[in-house]
Amino acid sequence: MHFRREWHPPEVVGHRCLTRGLSDIAAMGGEPVAAFLSLALPRDLPQKWVGRFLTGLLALADQFKVPLAGGDTAQSPNGILADILVLGSVPRGKAILRSGARPGDRIYITGELGEAAAALDLMFSGRKLRPEDYPRHFHPLPRITLGRYLRQKNLASAMIDISDGLSTDLKHICEESSVGAEIRDYAIPRARMGKTGHKLELKYALHGGDEYELIFTARPERKVPSKIAGVAITEIGRITRGREMISINASGKRSRLRAEGWQHFASR
Amino acid sequence: MHFRREWHPPEVVGHRCLTRGLSDIAAMGGEPVAAFLSLALPRDLPQKWVGRFLTGLLALADQFKVPLAGGDTAQSPNGILADILVLGSVPRGKAILRSGARPGDRIYITGELGEAAAALDLMFSGRKLRPEDYPRHFHPLPRITLGRYLRQKNLASAMIDISDGLSTDLKHICEESSVGAEIRDYAIPRARMGKTGHKLELKYALHGGDEYELIFTARPERKVPSKIAGVAITEIGRITRGREMISINASGKRSRLRAEGWQHFASR
Repeated sequence: MHFRREWHPPEVVGHRCLTRGLSDIAAMGGEPVAAFLSLALPRDLPQKWVGRFLTGLLALADQFKVPLAGGDTAQSPNGILADILVLGSVPRGKAILRSGARPGDRIYITGELGEAAAALDLMFSGRKLRPEDYPRHFHPLPRITLGRYLRQKNLASAMIDISDGLSTDLKHICEESSVGAEIRDYAIPRARMGKTGHKLELKYALHGGDEYELIFTARPERKVPSKIAGVAITEIGRITRGREMISINASGKRSRLRAEGWQHFASR
Repeated sequence: MHFRREWHPPEVVGHRCLTRGLSDIAAMGGEPVAAFLSLALPRDLPQKWVGRFLTGLLALADQFKVPLAGGDTAQSPNGILADILVLGSVPRGKAILRSGARPGDRIYITGELGEAAAALDLMFSGRKLRPEDYPRHFHPLPRITLGRYLRQKNLASAMIDISDGLSTDLKHICEESSVGAEIRDYAIPRARMGKTGHKLELKYALHGGDEYELIFTARPERKVPSKIAGVAITEIGRITRGREMISINASGKRSRLRAEGWQHFASR
């Protein structure tokens, strides 16, 4: 459910497939060790599609020095199915989990949000997009270096990637840490869209997924750099004792923040 | 394409899924280290089905002391999809490959063949089978202990499991070893069927898949036991210099053996 053949060139599908696996390693501060790929392909799929898919996937694997170490192929009754598995390692006890946030921790996000979901919306409305204009949608990069830095410096108390959307993934941290959260919605850095350069609507930044930026929390006394590995880090709120997620707007109005992370292609 | 919900209880599907992954480790003489499972499930699948699937899979994992170490779940547009990945280890350079057969090597198979494919045929013809009567179909066991023994004793020059059928999997050895093979078809031990106890037709033993028995080759001077880990070992032929596969019947008639390993559910 993560791509459409008419919108996404095979290289992009391969790239995005591996990004998804690498991003889960990044979100724990891990080092990727090896990737495994299983493909189920319809009988009539041109071999060329598979070759180009692998070209995209292997280029990214090469960039992060992750060997493609195995996998499987099968026939699919309909549709292309790709299952990526990435093994990663961290020193024992050093993985950054979802469950380490405590009341008072500050909440940070990496990069700028919303472009991936907004690009998808444009394509659903019939627009044809050029991959080079929407790199966060077509060529998202897993935040491996950034995640490793946070782990090495013991900076993050909890972390997750934003593959399901900020509101939904923040909720995962809240649930597994048994805490709540307050975020200042106006503080969330929103991507500027394509060549037009206008800032995206808040909903995309708040609920759009498929992003591969990271949300993390840190104890209030820890000094978190404003940039790590070339990526901007922004404080957007704090962890609270209550179990609710609250969003505060620029006028100070507080409202309940619901996990409305997008179901991407599923809901259309 | 490896099961049908109306024929296979969920526990059986889980068991067979992991057998498939473990069998590939067995076929290299490896030790299974960890299993990873990805499931894509239709929205309307009862949670109970998933629970019973995992019960079957975890019972087998427990038997071989393999932890289920990770995986992923996703929604499937139609049908249940399970992707199993098993990591295994062998001492460096000791994996038994498909490419090690040499002319003159003897060809051996483990166990008795054909029951899995024959049981499938019965079900296609409308018969309802009781899993306990057809254990090789419903509860096949990966030959981990046997494969490990062959590796530790340096007995096998090449090996593969019979998941695609003897003729097709023997061809994989021939191609990757750049050799041919001659087998005595009457020497292949055929399973006796269900409660009736009649010996299966040759075609099932020769081309039936989904078996998880092993074919291996050994240098002619090596003494191969007639039983390993409680499983019968039978010599059925030898590796030749020519690239062809030849089948010899009880009257000495030679014919070309084609890789006709069954496509299981695909071809019906």
